[in-house]
Amino acid sequence: MRILLLNQRAFMATPLILRSVARRASLSFFSSSAFKWEGGVSMVQGASRGIGLEFVKQLLEKNEKGHVVATCRNPDSATGLLSLKNKFSERLSIQKLDLTLESTIEACANCIRNKFGSLNLLINASGILSIPDVLQPETTLSRVEKSSLLLAYEVNAVGPILVIKHMWPLLKVGGHSQTKRDVAIVANLSARVGSIGDNRLGGWHSYRSSKAALNQLTKTVSVEFARKKDPIICILLHPGTVDTDLSRPFQRNVPEGKLFTKEFSVQKLLGIINKAKSHDNGKFFAWDGQEIPW
Amino acid sequence: MRILLLNQRAFMATPLILRSVARRASLSFFSSSAFKWEGGVSMVQGASRGIGLEFVKQLLEKNEKGHVVATCRNPDSATGLLSLKNKFSERLSIQKLDLTLESTIEACANCIRNKFGSLNLLINASGILSIPDVLQPETTLSRVEKSSLLLAYEVNAVGPILVIKHMWPLLKVGGHSQTKRDVAIVANLSARVGSIGDNRLGGWHSYRSSKAALNQLTKTVSVEFARKKDPIICILLHPGTVDTDLSRPFQRNVPEGKLFTKEFSVQKLLGIINKAKSHDNGKFFAWDGQEIPW
Ligand SMILES: NC(=O)c1ccc[n+]([C@@H]2O[C@H](COP(=O)([O-])OP(=O)(O)OC[C@H]3O[C@@H](n4cnc5c(N)ncnc54)[C@H](OP(=O)(O)O)[C@@H]3O)[C@@H](O)[C@H]2O)c1
Ligand SMILES: NC(=O)c1ccc[n+]([C@@H]2O[C@H](COP(=O)([O-])OP(=O)(O)OC[C@H]3O[C@@H](n4cnc5c(N)ncnc54)[C@H](OP(=O)(O)O)[C@@H]3O)[C@@H](O)[C@H]2O)c1
Repeated sequence: MRILLLNQRAFMATPLILRSVARRASLSFFSSSAFKWEGGVSMVQGASRGIGLEFVKQLLEKNEKGHVVATCRNPDSATGLLSLKNKFSERLSIQKLDLTLESTIEACANCIRNKFGSLNLLINASGILSIPDVLQPETTLSRVEKSSLLLAYEVNAVGPILVIKHMWPLLKVGGHSQTKRDVAIVANLSARVGSIGDNRLGGWHSYRSSKAALNQLTKTVSVEFARKKDPIICILLHPGTVDTDLSRPFQRNVPEGKLFTKEFSVQKLLGIINKAKSHDNGKFFAWDGQEIPW
Repeated sequence: MRILLLNQRAFMATPLILRSVARRASLSFFSSSAFKWEGGVSMVQGASRGIGLEFVKQLLEKNEKGHVVATCRNPDSATGLLSLKNKFSERLSIQKLDLTLESTIEACANCIRNKFGSLNLLINASGILSIPDVLQPETTLSRVEKSSLLLAYEVNAVGPILVIKHMWPLLKVGGHSQTKRDVAIVANLSARVGSIGDNRLGGWHSYRSSKAALNQLTKTVSVEFARKKDPIICILLHPGTVDTDLSRPFQRNVPEGKLFTKEFSVQKLLGIINKAKSHDNGKFFAWDGQEIPW
C-alpha cells in the first residue's frame, strides 16, 4: 500500500505529458505482473466463516503491509468479511469464488492478476463435512451414497486443486518477489481423519476419502513444483478440532481441552506457514507442527 | 453344483406331499442364504479383459469346485468370458454390472443372493487410467480437468465401494460358511501410484487421487468389518506393471523384466488372497507380498 501511495504522490508532482507516459507504463507494469505489493498478497479461499475468516483477520492484524484477497461464495452476505472490510478497507479485497464453478475461480485469478500481478500465499480453507438434508457423515457402509461421495470430493479435493491450477502463474511471480518468504506458499486445509494410516475409527467415508484425495493431489502438485524449480511450496494442515460450524454437531465426544478456538488454531497454523521452508514442500502438518502419516 | 445335483436327485425320489414341503423349505433355505456352494462362490468385478478376466480363468482352473460370478458392462461382447463359459459352463455365471450405474450393482447382488445366497470372495478388478478422447493421464497441473478427476473417482473409488456395500450381506454369510477360508475376502485392485508416501514422480492426478481415495475407503470399510466382528477382511492389491490394455500406452519406460504377464501377476495375487488372514484386514500389498505405504 505504501508503495502505491508513494507512487501516486510522485505521479501527481509530474508534468502532464510525463504523467500520461507514466500511466501507460504503470498499466503495463500491473498487467505484466511485475508489480510487488509490499508485505505480499495473500489469498484465503473459503473465508466467509470459521477458520478461513479467522485467517483473514489474523493476516490483516499481524501483517501490517500485506494485502488479503478473501474469497467466498456469497460476498454480499459474508457479514464477518464485510465488517473486516470496514476496518481494513484498503488492505482487503472480497471476491466471489464457488469451488464448484470453475469459471468463478478463473475470474478470481484474472482479478488478482489485474490488480496485483502476483500471489505470495494461498490458503484453501474451505471444506464440507455435513450439510443438512444434503450431506451426512456416514456412520456405516450401508449409509454410503454415491451423491455424497461425489459432492465431498468435488468440494474438498477437486476445488482446491483447481484453485491452485489457476493461481499457479501468480504464485510463480509471488515466489520470485522480495517478501519475507523466499517462496510462495500454498496451504491446504486437510484433516487428520483424512489420514489412511491413522484411520482407527472408520465412518465418515465421504469426508475421509475426499481429504485423502486432497492429500494425494497436493503431494502430486508439490512434486511438479519441485521438479520445475518453481518458487512455490505446498503444505497440508490439520487445524485440530476447532470450534466452528463444521465441528459443532460432533463436539460432544471431544475430550476436555481438545476443542480449540479459531483464534488459537489459526495462530498455530500461521506459525507453521511463516516458518515453512522448501524442504517442507508436500508435507502434512498438524496444528502443533507434528507431521501426520498419510 | 454337486450338492445341488444331489439335492435334486433326492428331491425327485420323495413322495409328492413331502416334495411340496421340501420345496417350500428349499426355497426358504435359498432365500435365507444358508445354502453352501461347495468350494465357495467368488465374484470378479471388471472381468471383461485384463487382470479381471485372468482372475476368472485362474479361479476356474485352480479351484475345481468353486463357482465364479464374473461381471462386466457388456456381457454380450465379452468374448474372453464367453469362451470361458464354453469350457466351464456350470461353474461360471456372467452378470452385467456397470460401476457408474448403482442399479446394476444392486441387481447383481440380488441375482447372487437368489442363486447362491452367499459370497466367499469379491475381487474388484476394474479400473480406468486413460480413455481415448475422454480421459488422459495428466502430465502437468495445467492439464488437470474437473471432469477427469470426477470420472476417475466415480469408477475407481466410488464404484468398488458401492459393490462392497451391496455384497456385504452375502459376504457375511460367506464368511461364516465352511470353505477353506475362515473369512470372506474383499480384494480391491489399487495401484502403487495411489500411494501418497511413494509419490515421487507426480502427474496422473486423476488416477493417483482416485486410488488414494480407494485406499482410504477400503481402510474405512475394513475398520467397520473388524469392529462389528464380521467374518470379512478387505485388502488392497498392487498387481505390478502388467501387460494389459490399461498399461499399453505407457509401457515404453518400463525397465526390462518389470512388465509382468497377466498370468504371472494374477498367480501372485491369488497367492496373497489365499493366504490372507484376519490380521491382514485393511492392508495394501504389492504382487510380491510387500506392504506398500499409504
Ligand atoms: N473445524 C474443525 O474441527 C476442523 C477439523 C479438521 C479439519 N478442518 C478443515 O478446516 C477447513 C475449515 O473448516 P471450518 O471448521 O472453518 O469449516 P466451516 O466453519 O464450516 O467453514 C467452511 C467454509 O467452506 C466454505 N465452502 C463450503 N462450500 C464451498 C464451496 N462450494 N465453494 C467455496 N467455499 C465453500 C464455506 O462457505 P459458505 O459460508 O459459503 O458455506 C465456509 O467458508 C476445512 O477444510 C475443514 O475440513 C476443520
Ligand atoms: N495393468 C497394470 O499395469 C496395472 C498396474 C497397477 C494397477 N492396475 C489396476 O488393476 C486393475 C485392472 O487393470 P487392468 O490392467 O486389467 O485394466 P484393463 O485391461 O484396462 O481392464 C479394465 C477393466 O475395468 C473395466 N471397467 C472400466 N470401466 C468400468 C465400469 N464403469 N464398470 C465396470 N467395469 C469397468 C473394463 O471393462 P470394459 O471392458 O467394459 O471397459 C475392464 O474389464 C485396475 O484397477 C487397475 O487400476 C493395473
